[in-house]
Amino acid sequence: MPISKAQIKRLKALHQAKFRLSDRLFLVEGKKGVEEALASDWEVQSVYSTDENWVQTHTGAECITVLEMQQISALNSPSEHLACIALKTFGRPDVKENVLYLDGIRDPGNLGTIIRSADWFGWKKVVLSNDCVDFTNPKVVQSTMGSLFHTSIFIDEEANFLSQAHHQNLPIWGADLKGEDLKKTIPANPVVLVIGSESHGIRKEAAPWVQHQVTIGSRGGAESLNAAIATSIILHQWS
Amino acid sequence: MPISKAQIKRLKALHQAKFRLSDRLFLVEGKKGVEEALASDWEVQSVYSTDENWVQTHTGAECITVLEMQQISALNSPSEHLACIALKTFGRPDVKENVLYLDGIRDPGNLGTIIRSADWFGWKKVVLSNDCVDFTNPKVVQSTMGSLFHTSIFIDEEANFLSQAHHQNLPIWGADLKGEDLKKTIPANPVVLVIGSESHGIRKEAAPWVQHQVTIGSRGGAESLNAAIATSIILHQWS
Repeated sequence: MPISKAQIKRLKALHQAKFRLSDRLFLVEGKKGVEEALASDWEVQSVYSTDENWVQTHTGAECITVLEMQQISALNSPSEHLACIALKTFGRPDVKENVLYLDGIRDPGNLGTIIRSADWFGWKKVVLSNDCVDFTNPKVVQSTMGSLFHTSIFIDEEANFLSQAHHQNLPIWGADLKGEDLKKTIPANPVVLVIGSESHGIRKEAAPWVQHQVTIGSRGGAESLNAAIATSIILHQWS
Repeated sequence: MPISKAQIKRLKALHQAKFRLSDRLFLVEGKKGVEEALASDWEVQSVYSTDENWVQTHTGAECITVLEMQQISALNSPSEHLACIALKTFGRPDVKENVLYLDGIRDPGNLGTIIRSADWFGWKKVVLSNDCVDFTNPKVVQSTMGSLFHTSIFIDEEANFLSQAHHQNLPIWGADLKGEDLKKTIPANPVVLVIGSESHGIRKEAAPWVQHQVTIGSRGGAESLNAAIATSIILHQWS
């Protein structure tokens, strides 16, 4: 049965945050992302592909035309695969594992790349301050390269995650331009690592809870590192 | 004297690679990038800003309207500052310093971010294989955050940089998913580090010259790291 115009419209609406929120659905595009979603415990609502052979080997997948894919896709160059995923809600992470706290990260590419690196280094618990970019934004989903479906993402709506972690005596570290040299730090385990945005650093709401600052040593002329780069270097050093 | 329509057209043409190549000019946007260009030994042909106070304190800068800036800018949200820079040609780097060899990097954001990280870690010599994205592409320039003007970038047009480095007995390392654990490597100095693209890895033209492979240890589920992330982690570890 071919895809209906109404379905195309409903899927395309998910480019917009308000519809993702009201429908509790979002899109993932690209073979890698779609296959990771299918292999995960996330609920995949529907799967579309322009590749007939792929559809035949993936139960429930529907074959659509390149034109239909272009209509649904949020990418300039649509891939052959797209899936619609039900939003999953994660509980507050307990304090037995390392937590990556992302504080006011607004750039979708940076957020997605950070989630991908966190997955690589086994930091599976990510907490987002309530002003981070929506993690179901197509650009975020795209840059996680499927790692979104390996990660538990808790949104700190009540803005009390760091204060609670502090009262539970968890060590809280922040990345900063003026802190201890990363190569000399040996953090306790578990630990909370707070990453602020490139433009504003760690926000004043979060800063009081950060006890230790860590800095990546520089030998050159750049004033700062990209936020996703800095995060990944710290995760590498601490892993 | 207000900016002419012909000038606006000429600047706007620099969004396209063919005009950057024929005019040997490119644009940099944003206060940080423009100020780094002015402080560098690159030839700044013209400088524009919508901020009158800034123009008064920067000799040669011209004040333009927000509308004019929108017409010239390659950004969706133009900044207040833009400069037109004369392309500089760098000679082949000698073998006394570490060299970062970027092999087939097509993603502009990745290339720019790599140049920014290389600058941070003091790797000032970057060589691009002849199929890398044009480093004067607006997105590349933007993501270097001014580090472009601290770095010497040589384009390996003749595709013989690695063979020559090999015959000069320079150790040549490549980033790969199956190599020595980065944390255990102690490369000689100077060294050549070869980075391939995320989708294709190190190309078959470059691979024969790579003697050592280095891998970033994983503890999670992601299949790979972003190319700019992987490069930056290696530069951090080796600095």
